[in-house]
Amino acid sequence: MKSNLLSNIVNPADLRLLSEAQLPEVAKELRQFIIDVVSVKEGHLGASLGVVELTIALHYVFNTPEDLLVWDVGHQAYGHKILTERRENFHTNRQIGGISGFPKRSESVYDTFGVGHSSTSISAALGMAIASQLKGDLNKQHIAVIGDASIASGMAFEGLNHAGVTDANLLVILNDNAIGIDPSVGALKQYLTAVKEGKNPKKNNMIKSLNFDYSGPIDGHDLPNLIKELNRLKNIKGPKFLHIVTTKGKGLQQAEENQVKYHAPGKFDAATGELLLKSEENLPPKYQDVFGLTILDLARKNEKIIGITPAMPSGSSLKFMMDEIPERAFDVGIAEQHAVTLAAGMATQGMIVYCNIYSTFLQRAYDQVIHDVALQNLPVIFCLDRAGLVGEDGATHHGVFDIAYLRAIPNMIIYAPINEIALQNILYTAQLGLNHPIAIRYPRGRGVLPKWEVENFGHYHKIKIGEANCLKNGTKIAVLSTGSIGNNVIDALKESSNSNEIAHYDFSFIKPLDNNTLHFIFSNFSSIITIEEATINGGFGSAVLEFAAANNYKNDIQILGIPDVFIEHGTVNQLQQLCKIDVKSLVNLFSNDSK
Amino acid sequence: MKSNLLSNIVNPADLRLLSEAQLPEVAKELRQFIIDVVSVKEGHLGASLGVVELTIALHYVFNTPEDLLVWDVGHQAYGHKILTERRENFHTNRQIGGISGFPKRSESVYDTFGVGHSSTSISAALGMAIASQLKGDLNKQHIAVIGDASIASGMAFEGLNHAGVTDANLLVILNDNAIGIDPSVGALKQYLTAVKEGKNPKKNNMIKSLNFDYSGPIDGHDLPNLIKELNRLKNIKGPKFLHIVTTKGKGLQQAEENQVKYHAPGKFDAATGELLLKSEENLPPKYQDVFGLTILDLARKNEKIIGITPAMPSGSSLKFMMDEIPERAFDVGIAEQHAVTLAAGMATQGMIVYCNIYSTFLQRAYDQVIHDVALQNLPVIFCLDRAGLVGEDGATHHGVFDIAYLRAIPNMIIYAPINEIALQNILYTAQLGLNHPIAIRYPRGRGVLPKWEVENFGHYHKIKIGEANCLKNGTKIAVLSTGSIGNNVIDALKESSNSNEIAHYDFSFIKPLDNNTLHFIFSNFSSIITIEEATINGGFGSAVLEFAAANNYKNDIQILGIPDVFIEHGTVNQLQQLCKIDVKSLVNLFSNDSK
Repeated sequence: MKSNLLSNIVNPADLRLLSEAQLPEVAKELRQFIIDVVSVKEGHLGASLGVVELTIALHYVFNTPEDLLVWDVGHQAYGHKILTERRENFHTNRQIGGISGFPKRSESVYDTFGVGHSSTSISAALGMAIASQLKGDLNKQHIAVIGDASIASGMAFEGLNHAGVTDANLLVILNDNAIGIDPSVGALKQYLTAVKEGKNPKKNNMIKSLNFDYSGPIDGHDLPNLIKELNRLKNIKGPKFLHIVTTKGKGLQQAEENQVKYHAPGKFDAATGELLLKSEENLPPKYQDVFGLTILDLARKNEKIIGITPAMPSGSSLKFMMDEIPERAFDVGIAEQHAVTLAAGMATQGMIVYCNIYSTFLQRAYDQVIHDVALQNLPVIFCLDRAGLVGEDGATHHGVFDIAYLRAIPNMIIYAPINEIALQNILYTAQLGLNHPIAIRYPRGRGVLPKWEVENFGHYHKIKIGEANCLKNGTKIAVLSTGSIGNNVIDALKESSNSNEIAHYDFSFIKPLDNNTLHFIFSNFSSIITIEEATINGGFGSAVLEFAAANNYKNDIQILGIPDVFIEHGTVNQLQQLCKIDVKSLVNLFSNDSK
Repeated sequence: MKSNLLSNIVNPADLRLLSEAQLPEVAKELRQFIIDVVSVKEGHLGASLGVVELTIALHYVFNTPEDLLVWDVGHQAYGHKILTERRENFHTNRQIGGISGFPKRSESVYDTFGVGHSSTSISAALGMAIASQLKGDLNKQHIAVIGDASIASGMAFEGLNHAGVTDANLLVILNDNAIGIDPSVGALKQYLTAVKEGKNPKKNNMIKSLNFDYSGPIDGHDLPNLIKELNRLKNIKGPKFLHIVTTKGKGLQQAEENQVKYHAPGKFDAATGELLLKSEENLPPKYQDVFGLTILDLARKNEKIIGITPAMPSGSSLKFMMDEIPERAFDVGIAEQHAVTLAAGMATQGMIVYCNIYSTFLQRAYDQVIHDVALQNLPVIFCLDRAGLVGEDGATHHGVFDIAYLRAIPNMIIYAPINEIALQNILYTAQLGLNHPIAIRYPRGRGVLPKWEVENFGHYHKIKIGEANCLKNGTKIAVLSTGSIGNNVIDALKESSNSNEIAHYDFSFIKPLDNNTLHFIFSNFSSIITIEEATINGGFGSAVLEFAAANNYKNDIQILGIPDVFIEHGTVNQLQQLCKIDVKSLVNLFSNDSK
């Protein structure tokens, strides 16, 4: 399909030159443009297809970038990016040096607030609206577009609760498609569904009870009606709320029918929507599946086992357990704080709770980990998926702070498995009873053992808490790795000419540290290198330094990890190169260090 | 007044032997007992006086400790403690080795969940209720008592949103007294007030829209009615919600009339309620007042300055600015997540935002600090009151993790003033424009300069970012302190016979570190001691170790700070002794180290 209107739109000013009658054609072209690029370059599809009409209507009616538009999460902002000066760069989406998969302030004046984690848009837009009030910009518009999954998170409620007692010029648009990445859950979702189905008279309106001027629900794909409603709302002062109903994946049949899969489908045929699946034969399993298969297997045998995920059943693979043992596997929605304290409450009653939260999202529940779990020394098992560098999702999503922020908490055990077997075995060991909370951090993507499921799955071995392992002997240098980055060390040692000089120790336990092994290492190697896929500041290497200082060791210690900058998007390998923890950098380092 | 009934009640089983007609007398005695003890021993008064009837009714109707009762926050749990085997120890409340000021699992089987931070009760009680369901305990009751300030926090909404789609045996009791520590705010509060005033027909009910069986509002001081209603609710399955209305401070006229002051009034006359004020003459100011006075002074001169507090206007002294410049000083309620992202939104529009959050409560907004502020490098000014050991509030409230959790975040400046002048000057310097976020951590309580307000207030000096100061020269040992704990070093050096050997450097900037001064120190002193009122794991001392490792220095380094255990309650000095960072411990250390 040849683009005609779209190719003449550089920014929203161009869009506003068109007649309203031309907009459906723009929508058609924009939708096709997204499909064409994402089908080849990969990325998030369904959310952006669902808001094509809304995106056009917003930029048509409002005077962006003067009026300030905040997209919650930002998965849905591809159309926005294409209409705001990034059409020609859109093919670089999520690639190193290319545009970000999320709105980002440093990328464009149209991106008023960087997003990635959910439910920030109302607070951010309200802050902008109050600032405008104080500056006397009384006609400036401030719009937050938020999905029904995100608005159910506590932070969004906090924003609404504050906004409702201001007279700030804030428009909250609820993009209600009944799904986040997985289908939405919770009482608010049920309520919204009832509203949509006309079962809830408008006078019984939760949003109105928070002092908002509520309108809707209206069809979010009906451009004329959307434009009419936005024009009406533009002239109403104070906090306003528009409830629109959309279909995630709109315009691509397969994406509409299989919304979870087409959230971020990978490559597909732009014409038919067929997924172009890569062969998974002989590939190692995903770590998330090692978790998902193992917890299901363990839960079958132990009735006290419970699984919790905040809105990531597919991404965490807790789905396996949810399908077979739904009464003990809970998707609580985007509610990390609740997830952790719910787990703590269950643990007080003797349940064995696996609380699976991506590393980057556990930041949302840091206080609950300290105050509700660790302080009471409740043996909750935190499974931190997507720990370390996550690749294309970029700076908002890297799980690189967890070692530093968890290591300061008393009572915590922190474990980073080097491979699938270690992950399986720590999951097994944890349910035998540790009498402490444990955080198990493992990476996004695949492991290193293609035959794990056939050869190892279900053959459990108890792990001794706090014990490090010598993976390779050496004469001069000891490399201490924690977690899956240890595989880079293994590979680098295979390629290093002087590998006989270099010992390799796997410190899966970041806390407690294996002091005996550390004493041996510090007594037998003059030079020590630590390596982790987490921040150097306060991380595993820091723990080794604290040990050395406390024991008055004077060995050379070099710490490798994530430096003190935010790491952007790219492939994991590209980002590891930036941090000098990829295999090649390690080969070079080992060669130089032993000279 | 002589207690008759109360003195025979050891635990709720004894209470249940009484007739319903005797309960008002128990209430009278319990209220007087609380007043008598708290008037002498200090502690939280108003909240517990307000729930005397509720406390009695709950333990009378429900079969505690088999039925599980969770108090949100726990300020209101004194009556609960007295009725549950702790009457005779109640005079040890909040003292070292005595009972905790909050419910605490290790203290009593009646304390089902440790609390301190707000809004955890619904999640915790729901977790217990689901666990009971899974275990087949279908008659077990699970009750969360939560105030109207706490229920407006996002975490509570997350709990309600989940509970509403379960059939768990959960009773949420909203204790609505229109005040937390300061008066409640927000749209939900307005809604609840309208409900109480009969302005909102029950059919338009926010709680019902979340699938709860709602009843109330009823008078929370009417014992017969409370008991009747609780008995009725006991037999209803699934999630239930009871809205009761109480008066904070009930039964002590002055506490009812001045609810903010009598939240934790200090010593007072038990008969008259008169406060027994200590003379404040010649005392140094509270750090919170240095903040409060300074931000007001700066805000008068700079229209871009905004202050934000999540529900701590009195505790943070932002009240001063709220009274004089209300349009730029915001109490957003117990909503730390929203507070931080609101600040970020304002900062995008060029406002200079001081976001004042107690160190321990910033744990609630850790993700927002990373994701919404630091990643976008927005120059929000975080003022972390109550950093370090807070004394009698104990383990839930010590602000000891902040250095470790903030130090891992790129772009952050972290500053800990040694005294009132340094705090004033960094507050001044921050609004000149740092192009980075900054966290300023300062302690609870008073500073060290009695004449600060007269001699220094308003005389601002710009602080050079990242610069350490030599406070005292020495020959052998360098002590590097950060923050107000440096005053212990100053005092200890005055008492140390060998003080000429010991240099003292004030590293107010934890990040960025003053590398030049560190190079000088590491080159000129063989032995280095770091000291901070924060966790040793990952803290300031760790940063110094990272510097030393990166620069291959081999000096002896000793790190003083909070060890890897949760520190309980006591006076700050007692707790500093536990951690060996009090003046006397330092005198001993300095004497031994230089031998």
